[in-house]
Amino acid sequence: MSYFPNIGKVAYEGPKSRNPLAFKQYNPGEVVAGKTMEEHLRFSVAYWHTFTASGADPFGSATMLRPWDRLSGLDLAKARLEAAFEFFEKLGVPYFAFHDRDIAPEGDTLQETNANLDIIVALIKEYMKTSKTKLLWNTVNMFSHPRFVHGAATTCNADVFAYCAAQVKKGLEVGKELDAQNYVFWGGREGYETLLNTDLKLELDNLARFLHMAVDYAQEIGFTAQFLIEPKPKEPTKHQYDFDAANAAAFLSQNGLREYFKMNIEANHATLAGHTFQHELRWSRIHGLLGSVDANQGDVMLGWDTDEFPTDLYETTLAMYEILQNGGLGKGGLNFDAKPRRASFTPEDLFYAHIAGMDSFAKGLKVAAKLVEDGVFEAVIAQRYRSFREGIGVDIVEGRANFHTLENYALRQSVITNESGRQETLKAILNQYLLES
Amino acid sequence: MSYFPNIGKVAYEGPKSRNPLAFKQYNPGEVVAGKTMEEHLRFSVAYWHTFTASGADPFGSATMLRPWDRLSGLDLAKARLEAAFEFFEKLGVPYFAFHDRDIAPEGDTLQETNANLDIIVALIKEYMKTSKTKLLWNTVNMFSHPRFVHGAATTCNADVFAYCAAQVKKGLEVGKELDAQNYVFWGGREGYETLLNTDLKLELDNLARFLHMAVDYAQEIGFTAQFLIEPKPKEPTKHQYDFDAANAAAFLSQNGLREYFKMNIEANHATLAGHTFQHELRWSRIHGLLGSVDANQGDVMLGWDTDEFPTDLYETTLAMYEILQNGGLGKGGLNFDAKPRRASFTPEDLFYAHIAGMDSFAKGLKVAAKLVEDGVFEAVIAQRYRSFREGIGVDIVEGRANFHTLENYALRQSVITNESGRQETLKAILNQYLLES
Amino acid sequence: MSYFPNIGKVAYEGPKSRNPLAFKQYNPGEVVAGKTMEEHLRFSVAYWHTFTASGADPFGSATMLRPWDRLSGLDLAKARLEAAFEFFEKLGVPYFAFHDRDIAPEGDTLQETNANLDIIVALIKEYMKTSKTKLLWNTVNMFSHPRFVHGAATTCNADVFAYCAAQVKKGLEVGKELDAQNYVFWGGREGYETLLNTDLKLELDNLARFLHMAVDYAQEIGFTAQFLIEPKPKEPTKHQYDFDAANAAAFLSQNGLREYFKMNIEANHATLAGHTFQHELRWSRIHGLLGSVDANQGDVMLGWDTDEFPTDLYETTLAMYEILQNGGLGKGGLNFDAKPRRASFTPEDLFYAHIAGMDSFAKGLKVAAKLVEDGVFEAVIAQRYRSFREGIGVDIVEGRANFHTLENYALRQSVITNESGRQETLKAILNQYLLES
Amino acid sequence: MSYFPNIGKVAYEGPKSRNPLAFKQYNPGEVVAGKTMEEHLRFSVAYWHTFTASGADPFGSATMLRPWDRLSGLDLAKARLEAAFEFFEKLGVPYFAFHDRDIAPEGDTLQETNANLDIIVALIKEYMKTSKTKLLWNTVNMFSHPRFVHGAATTCNADVFAYCAAQVKKGLEVGKELDAQNYVFWGGREGYETLLNTDLKLELDNLARFLHMAVDYAQEIGFTAQFLIEPKPKEPTKHQYDFDAANAAAFLSQNGLREYFKMNIEANHATLAGHTFQHELRWSRIHGLLGSVDANQGDVMLGWDTDEFPTDLYETTLAMYEILQNGGLGKGGLNFDAKPRRASFTPEDLFYAHIAGMDSFAKGLKVAAKLVEDGVFEAVIAQRYRSFREGIGVDIVEGRANFHTLENYALRQSVITNESGRQETLKAILNQYLLES
Repeated sequence: MSYFPNIGKVAYEGPKSRNPLAFKQYNPGEVVAGKTMEEHLRFSVAYWHTFTASGADPFGSATMLRPWDRLSGLDLAKARLEAAFEFFEKLGVPYFAFHDRDIAPEGDTLQETNANLDIIVALIKEYMKTSKTKLLWNTVNMFSHPRFVHGAATTCNADVFAYCAAQVKKGLEVGKELDAQNYVFWGGREGYETLLNTDLKLELDNLARFLHMAVDYAQEIGFTAQFLIEPKPKEPTKHQYDFDAANAAAFLSQNGLREYFKMNIEANHATLAGHTFQHELRWSRIHGLLGSVDANQGDVMLGWDTDEFPTDLYETTLAMYEILQNGGLGKGGLNFDAKPRRASFTPEDLFYAHIAGMDSFAKGLKVAAKLVEDGVFEAVIAQRYRSFREGIGVDIVEGRANFHTLENYALRQSVITNESGRQETLKAILNQYLLES
Repeated sequence: MSYFPNIGKVAYEGPKSRNPLAFKQYNPGEVVAGKTMEEHLRFSVAYWHTFTASGADPFGSATMLRPWDRLSGLDLAKARLEAAFEFFEKLGVPYFAFHDRDIAPEGDTLQETNANLDIIVALIKEYMKTSKTKLLWNTVNMFSHPRFVHGAATTCNADVFAYCAAQVKKGLEVGKELDAQNYVFWGGREGYETLLNTDLKLELDNLARFLHMAVDYAQEIGFTAQFLIEPKPKEPTKHQYDFDAANAAAFLSQNGLREYFKMNIEANHATLAGHTFQHELRWSRIHGLLGSVDANQGDVMLGWDTDEFPTDLYETTLAMYEILQNGGLGKGGLNFDAKPRRASFTPEDLFYAHIAGMDSFAKGLKVAAKLVEDGVFEAVIAQRYRSFREGIGVDIVEGRANFHTLENYALRQSVITNESGRQETLKAILNQYLLES
Repeated sequence: MSYFPNIGKVAYEGPKSRNPLAFKQYNPGEVVAGKTMEEHLRFSVAYWHTFTASGADPFGSATMLRPWDRLSGLDLAKARLEAAFEFFEKLGVPYFAFHDRDIAPEGDTLQETNANLDIIVALIKEYMKTSKTKLLWNTVNMFSHPRFVHGAATTCNADVFAYCAAQVKKGLEVGKELDAQNYVFWGGREGYETLLNTDLKLELDNLARFLHMAVDYAQEIGFTAQFLIEPKPKEPTKHQYDFDAANAAAFLSQNGLREYFKMNIEANHATLAGHTFQHELRWSRIHGLLGSVDANQGDVMLGWDTDEFPTDLYETTLAMYEILQNGGLGKGGLNFDAKPRRASFTPEDLFYAHIAGMDSFAKGLKVAAKLVEDGVFEAVIAQRYRSFREGIGVDIVEGRANFHTLENYALRQSVITNESGRQETLKAILNQYLLES
Repeated sequence: MSYFPNIGKVAYEGPKSRNPLAFKQYNPGEVVAGKTMEEHLRFSVAYWHTFTASGADPFGSATMLRPWDRLSGLDLAKARLEAAFEFFEKLGVPYFAFHDRDIAPEGDTLQETNANLDIIVALIKEYMKTSKTKLLWNTVNMFSHPRFVHGAATTCNADVFAYCAAQVKKGLEVGKELDAQNYVFWGGREGYETLLNTDLKLELDNLARFLHMAVDYAQEIGFTAQFLIEPKPKEPTKHQYDFDAANAAAFLSQNGLREYFKMNIEANHATLAGHTFQHELRWSRIHGLLGSVDANQGDVMLGWDTDEFPTDLYETTLAMYEILQNGGLGKGGLNFDAKPRRASFTPEDLFYAHIAGMDSFAKGLKVAAKLVEDGVFEAVIAQRYRSFREGIGVDIVEGRANFHTLENYALRQSVITNESGRQETLKAILNQYLLES
């Protein structure tokens, strides 16, 4: 049977196609900057948004009724999985990602829950034998169940901490079993509601202990996936611990964990933290911490995580620019942590939305590749900072200057001349590349 | 002569006084939690807001015409200084703080500028012989002059970098000369306007080089003031590098600088970064980084740094709670980085505003001291986290647990029970203490 | 049986009581400014937050398991009702408020749904015979069911519009039956997700048509409750039509509806719109539009409607100040559109939270009454604006001035003198009244 | 002499030109949707940002040193004027706009100030005889001088109100003399800093009185320019009265002023108020209130008015879409209320920035015209709302329905079916049009 009977394999039809079920920009095999688009972009479908989400929001119930919704328990899980692999195949994506509870239902006990998971994981492994779609990353859901009400690894309740340990242990085993390229730590409930009842130091110390145990266990079982921290500043808690990339890095450094982790940067989380998407990518890149990307977009007029499919070509261009400068994403990918709006409730919308996102990043890749090829911003930067490649500038950069030598130099200077930063022109050039590339 | 002829020494008259030129809460010699109020609070007047600010804003010119404004150059600087020490004396504050350019005018050359500074520094030293008011901290202004348009230590222009080195070198010498308790680094222009023309890595590396030189030079001249980083997320630049305490800490750790610096936490900077004031204080405290406080308040409905005098008793109470838990501020203090509103333009308003701020922090101290004395929040926290002081919790905290032992434990657990976080009650209790203490 | 067996009637024990189940400030019969506290405050319990909410949030499931949750359908509805009247009685509140779907379940058809409603309404009427608690307002839920996905009265689907008409018709009948003091229109889904697919004019015109029909029908059946619009700027839709009080007033004026409606001002909605709570109250008051209040508080560091119980004494004081200046709320009241945090999940927390809110408003009432009695702000304002009570000022205010006479006057003026606005002092005085009243 | 000796007349060179001093999209004579680009776009240069701004910001002094800055007083005013008309000519813009104090200096008395103004106005009139550039609008600056510290028409000081009347009287006369197409009311200081000292009702009533006097005087002298209100929510005051278009409309309706005014919508003001630029344009359009546009863009990550040149092609496209739907801007135009960044300080940047803005709106015009020509969104909307063009929908729209007939209809309906809103697809289509048009 088919869960999407009206939809065939999505094909590339070129920029002028008016077929909503065709790619206009994403041509998987097309070579850009030395690699195929597919190799560059490493798209991934988010299991939770695409196969388990319902369109419910804080003020309303489910709008997205799927064919598989009539089932329940493991039958539901199996049907979703079948639908998922049909979806991956028709969309032609190389990766997907999931939380443990997305794919299999929780049982009455942890034993039963793990047994449910084993059944589905075995099925996934079976599907993967014939599918080209691989697992970009897995993670565990330590935020939905009420047991996590006060946090998971940062709970005030040692029993919950132990439960989480068991859950992540299983998650690492599942990742190894399915050859996940990465394993993600998004601390859904790791944060606080009010400092009045929070032992901030104990919670952060416990989080460090937890992550060390995870690193140790992965090494023990030989699970070599890249470990990723996913920063987010707020929501669901008033204040999340991994506020942004720099906060997460400070925590990792403080606790001897930095060498084991990279960042999974999400566009909407960046803007909630008061940064642009590009800022978080750039910051992570130059600190050697750019691991993977949750490819969505937020609504900066709204104060919560809207998880929209990425369609802003400025954002996709600048993101791909940073990724190209990073030499690609390595084991990481572009995971669509995005959902169709509640009012886009048909199965077709799942395709439309992914196509919109994939085309937007494909175009962003092409524009960014042309910018890099032409060295547009590199030339501007080389010119702007040229004084650090000569004279006193070299002394500074190479560590030969100190306050004495610099004061001597400054006292001899008569007038300091600066040059225009030309921001408006650079934005106009970006527009030209966007329209032409 | 007197610059404030209508105002006498501000005295404590108790909470019911309707005299706007009297303290209602701040009784300097009153002992609270084992120290005098004056020792706890270590109030400091900000030279720039109080003696050089004019009430100009981006849409309007000066409203605050002071008696000394008729002068110019060094005469103006000397008059301001005279007014300042009269103000300190009448208000009875133990500290003040300044930027180099607040106290002395810039000359045509760096030599001339430094000479101007020397004249005023000598005068300050003279005033300090008979005044009880000391220098909480000094810093340099590397943001107002157009030479800093592209940054100071993070400029794209090596000549500017050299100039800054000379300026900070002098700043450290001035600090030593005046026995400053702290030296502050607020990176006014250290940030970027657009990533399109910014070499983020070079700028951050240069900033690290600069701070190392500062540390080295202070050691060379035996200047033992505490070094402080002052985080701020945005304004004047689109994105400042020391975004918040954790961002600053990540930078310090990354560059081998962490041991030499603490944080100067400003309330309004905290909220601009998406944190509460208390959060930034708590975070700095538990990481051993709480150095000093810029005591102001922002307007969370507005998106810029309003630098209002602190009057919100919730904020002052929770700030003093963190400071008491920190064992006080050590060399740091409560510096009023605050200005009367543009419409509060009389010299009297300078007194009214400082009195409002001092009373608000004095009340906050009293409430916080009572909360700590009664162990209100400590008891709640001890109870909430008690599971980490027994059984599996102790194993976790003491490093004896791993994913195997915790999984075993979790698999044997039947039901996990959490307890209410009681946030609403805690807020009601805080209200009771506020009204009663 | 009792749903809250551990809790007795909540009594007033005075400000020093440490009993979390006692009032510290709210003494219902105590006379303040000529009326009892109970008459001033007109507290109301929100049925939805208190009896149907579960603690679920976008990232997690129910934490608040109530005794009645084991039931379903009409049995659940009846049990909740029984619990509700026990709660009202123990808390001693004079009012409650509900949406139609809070009190009775939706059936398979509108007929069945209405029949369910009739059963429960009859029961409520029965309870009200012996309870002192009355209905402050009722409304209908036109946002939770997926049929409202594109709006209710502003839907793109005429069938939905008709359904809404039937639902509000019934709502008005229910209000009349239960002698509701007010009837509230909160347009949960009245807004848009994207302008790209929205006929803004048709939607607003239809909303006006709908409200006219409601006004007509209420008159037809003799339902004399006050009609209230509840502004909110965003959430659940990207942009709600009743953005703030002024937006709602513009709409009412534009459509000949202004005389029939007043505003139901919610604190958290005010701040989401970029206004203070006091601003929205003041604006509504001076325009003769202040009808009722949803008494909660938001978290200005978060960008969504947190619906917290009001505990900030500044907010409650300034709200009560506006209400006293309004001569009270008339038919309106203070409805706790507020929920305990997800982590405050016990039945006791429902009491604690209401007590916190009631005490905070009671204290606010006392402080505001003292401020009004002493004419604190009135004296300041009379002094500040005194020039409009004499000379040219009177000409202006009484309509005798024009650009000719004013130019003549201005040309003869030599210097214009302004006086300080004294904002800092006014905030200090507010603190004194807060601590003393 | 020339103030911009290195720059010739800016020409259209087509989209691939790499000449920063050429238009790539703006071809003034090119016909789009039945009119030339120049007729559609009606570009205007803002005198204040382009000829008087200095690059100063709250943390730093002037960076933009212009040739004319060596002069002062009327000489400076004359030099700026000469530079302005050279700039207009080289850029080929049809309009400009100014505040009274931009063009002529304030004297010691109002008489002297007016005399200065007369001199410059006579000069402008002379320049206009040979220039094709006309006056889009003028206004008066009632915010910079300290006399306006407590407001202008909403001051607490009747002398200030009178002064403002004289100033606007002169402004209307100047507008008539120079044949201004519009006259703008931006209430720079019309708002409040704190409600604690504000008589909100008197201030709003006085504002209404003031605007009535302005309407009367314009009629008296036969000045037929379109009157425009420019909404802005905050800055410089904490809360401005014309918060957004709807707030301004509510005020106008309330005071019998609505027929005399339209809106001057500014992109950056829209976003500060929590609306998109398109929202404010659409809202104004469908209420018959769209008068003119301040064409800039803000930075939604920053909380103040950044007044950037518009380069976001989504924004310019959607703005031009609304303008085309409005049948054009009539007497209004696209005024660049925008400034180069402080770091873009050369005279060339003034050209680069205007070219970037003009090209961005020209491209937006072309994309919007194609969208309108193809009826892209119109078709979607016609389909979505089709149920209001048949059956019960027509009854609703034509006023024949009431709650009885609609309830009857609803009770007979079995199932209500909604259709997907397709937001993701619409955004993808917008991208296609952007890339192709």
